[in-house]
Amino acid sequence: MDDLMRALETSDASALLTAAEEIHYADLAALYENLDDAERDFFLKTIGPELATDVVAELPYPLIEEALNHFKPAQLRVLLGNLSDDDRVDVFQVVSEDTQRRFFALLGPRDKQLTKSLLKYDEDTAGGRMTTQVGRITADMTVKQAITVLRRDREDTETLARIFVVDEQGRLVGKVRLRDLAFNTWDTPIRDIMEEAGETILASADQEEAARTLSKYDLIVLPVVDEFHHLLGVLTYDDALEILQEESTEDIEKLAAISGEQSEVSYLNTSASQHYQRRVAWLVGLGFVSIASGYVMYRFSGVLEKAFVLSLFLPLVVAAGGNSGGQAATMVIRAMALGEITAGSAMKVAWKEARTGLFLGLSLGLSIAAFIAFILPHLHTAAIIGADFPRLAIAVACAITLQVLSATILGAMLPIAARAIKLDPAVVSAPSLASTVDVSGMLIYFTTAGAILHL
Amino acid sequence: MDDLMRALETSDASALLTAAEEIHYADLAALYENLDDAERDFFLKTIGPELATDVVAELPYPLIEEALNHFKPAQLRVLLGNLSDDDRVDVFQVVSEDTQRRFFALLGPRDKQLTKSLLKYDEDTAGGRMTTQVGRITADMTVKQAITVLRRDREDTETLARIFVVDEQGRLVGKVRLRDLAFNTWDTPIRDIMEEAGETILASADQEEAARTLSKYDLIVLPVVDEFHHLLGVLTYDDALEILQEESTEDIEKLAAISGEQSEVSYLNTSASQHYQRRVAWLVGLGFVSIASGYVMYRFSGVLEKAFVLSLFLPLVVAAGGNSGGQAATMVIRAMALGEITAGSAMKVAWKEARTGLFLGLSLGLSIAAFIAFILPHLHTAAIIGADFPRLAIAVACAITLQVLSATILGAMLPIAARAIKLDPAVVSAPSLASTVDVSGMLIYFTTAGAILHL
Repeated sequence: MDDLMRALETSDASALLTAAEEIHYADLAALYENLDDAERDFFLKTIGPELATDVVAELPYPLIEEALNHFKPAQLRVLLGNLSDDDRVDVFQVVSEDTQRRFFALLGPRDKQLTKSLLKYDEDTAGGRMTTQVGRITADMTVKQAITVLRRDREDTETLARIFVVDEQGRLVGKVRLRDLAFNTWDTPIRDIMEEAGETILASADQEEAARTLSKYDLIVLPVVDEFHHLLGVLTYDDALEILQEESTEDIEKLAAISGEQSEVSYLNTSASQHYQRRVAWLVGLGFVSIASGYVMYRFSGVLEKAFVLSLFLPLVVAAGGNSGGQAATMVIRAMALGEITAGSAMKVAWKEARTGLFLGLSLGLSIAAFIAFILPHLHTAAIIGADFPRLAIAVACAITLQVLSATILGAMLPIAARAIKLDPAVVSAPSLASTVDVSGMLIYFTTAGAILHL
Repeated sequence: MDDLMRALETSDASALLTAAEEIHYADLAALYENLDDAERDFFLKTIGPELATDVVAELPYPLIEEALNHFKPAQLRVLLGNLSDDDRVDVFQVVSEDTQRRFFALLGPRDKQLTKSLLKYDEDTAGGRMTTQVGRITADMTVKQAITVLRRDREDTETLARIFVVDEQGRLVGKVRLRDLAFNTWDTPIRDIMEEAGETILASADQEEAARTLSKYDLIVLPVVDEFHHLLGVLTYDDALEILQEESTEDIEKLAAISGEQSEVSYLNTSASQHYQRRVAWLVGLGFVSIASGYVMYRFSGVLEKAFVLSLFLPLVVAAGGNSGGQAATMVIRAMALGEITAGSAMKVAWKEARTGLFLGLSLGLSIAAFIAFILPHLHTAAIIGADFPRLAIAVACAITLQVLSATILGAMLPIAARAIKLDPAVVSAPSLASTVDVSGMLIYFTTAGAILHL
């Protein structure tokens, strides 16, 4: 890696090529992100279209078009032809329409048709992520015939971990493992060693569902089929890894009220203006929601004026709602993402969270009540406060319990409600939930305290 | 699945067995979680130790000991012997010490020694997650000899997607693909077709690092070695999937101030008291922190009394800090989890977040200022408020900008600081950050407003 950086600095093409060939393309792609324009040009031209194919396939999407524009048409033809079919579709999906047309003209007839047919599927479906480069044999072959077919295709095939058996119409009828070909005599009929095909997924299914199926059943490849059970391609374990990581990142970001698609580029290579764009909408929107809490506080200024000691615990009551609601929402959203909760379990979830919330509210409420009754009177500030400590303790504890209980139930139910109306449960971000229960917290606090303290 | 439920209800053993054999063990394990005690006993005894092996390996950890206690020693011996070595170690790690001793007595001498040696590694290291069941050959074999060796071991081998070449001391020297064995003539020496071993990981390395390496380089198996490069075992792609999912869940939960280990049991099968235990500590702890905000508010009661209109925007200023700080912290924590940020980039992150925070603060501040200057005076409540609207707009906008800017920088820097002192960056949960910037928000708001409005 050091050799490579030195070669880049001194523009030493042969040293660069030697160094690059020793480095994994995933590392070369990571390095490419951090180069300036001139370095990128020199780097790509030196390593040439063959090696660049692997590097380009690993680049974050926004950099792909720019990278490809460094190549001449003849080189591009090689590079686009070398790409695996799913990577090629990714490239076509992310470049501008003009570029797409230009690239199409460079493809061979077979690749052109294949790419067109794959582009039909949505990016985030099983069909949009699958590769068609899979070992296919028929049941009437012998092991020897199968090996001959697979050997011919092997350079084009992404994985031979599973080899699929199809009938004359291309319908999936079974699978064999490469080890079963290797360990059986050459005249064994495939029919005798093939197993049932097992789990499959529809091309139109969501990519997350496909990845979870692969993960649940510990598969290396998951066959993707159409509604007539024709084998269209496979989703591989590395696609599943990528999909599940993307979905986790998406959930984490949504929970923190960050909107839009996650950047394919790393954090540091994303500009401040792009970071800004993903955060500003929620921040400003929630700001206006918070005026509702302010309005409640303003309306209850009479109560506050009569007993300013109440302000000591106002932020606490408000924050406790946001915190406990956020905890409940997070647990439920993650459980939904992992497929542990469906809309049908809403009542069970509500009952579990009601008990959890009640105990949480009582724990916090009683802790604070003990603080007010036993510790606060002995603090330096007690003289200024001069309040009815026992009564204040009761009022604050009641308000906290009510607030935590209601926020916990609300936090757990909103994601389920969102799913019920076909929204992503993770739209119920912790901040938006907090802003909502801020309002209820103010109302609960002032009415409870007002009633108990006779204000 | 319906057949199986019916067989369970009618206690029809033969129907149950027939149905269970048709169902994937991952589905059987999910079903088992939801059975009552008597059903579990009947289910396990009916399917017998052979089929139960796969089911037990898929169970959440807390259920494993209970499940195994349904079997008699002779059956347990079969079941423990059938488990793959990494699953067996998992079982030994989660059962009580007494049970562990009892189980050890049931193992054959080879399994006993292997299990003991694997138990040396921490649960969350590459060594603790690896399987030793991997195809091993030497460079001086021919393809035919290699196939003979692998065929003998194949039932014990988790994956033959990669076969590793070791020297006489067991040091890793290369790898071959099963396809290269299948597609070459039987007298080809392994030496001629083997490739470099490529990426490896130390047994003592963190499991997350191992999973990320496997994912980054699109490997099916990652060889686990000791410091002398002896091949100890492999981490497989399905382990990596599991590890990365666990780590994502952990980060999501920590960000929401949920403490402790995630439950291996699904959300609905976790008791309310366990849910309570994971949330109560942070909730109560943060409650006490919030008293600090309350104290600031209490100290500034004079300012508030003079201009109660300020309460209209107090929740907004406070919440904006928590929201923007939480956004920044989440972005940075996720970027660190994905390996995009190291401690060395702290200054770059600070500069990026300072700009992002400034623009966010100005956006929210100016929006609210516009609301105060142009809309608020025309609302129904304006008559009650009777404030100096232009001056109020300036005061609130300044406070918001300062609060968002400082909270954004703090939110981004705290996770990096946590990593620097060897803490998990995700300990900087959104709620704990919010409670911290609540205090600064109160201070900023009252001092800024006090100065600009001459209170």
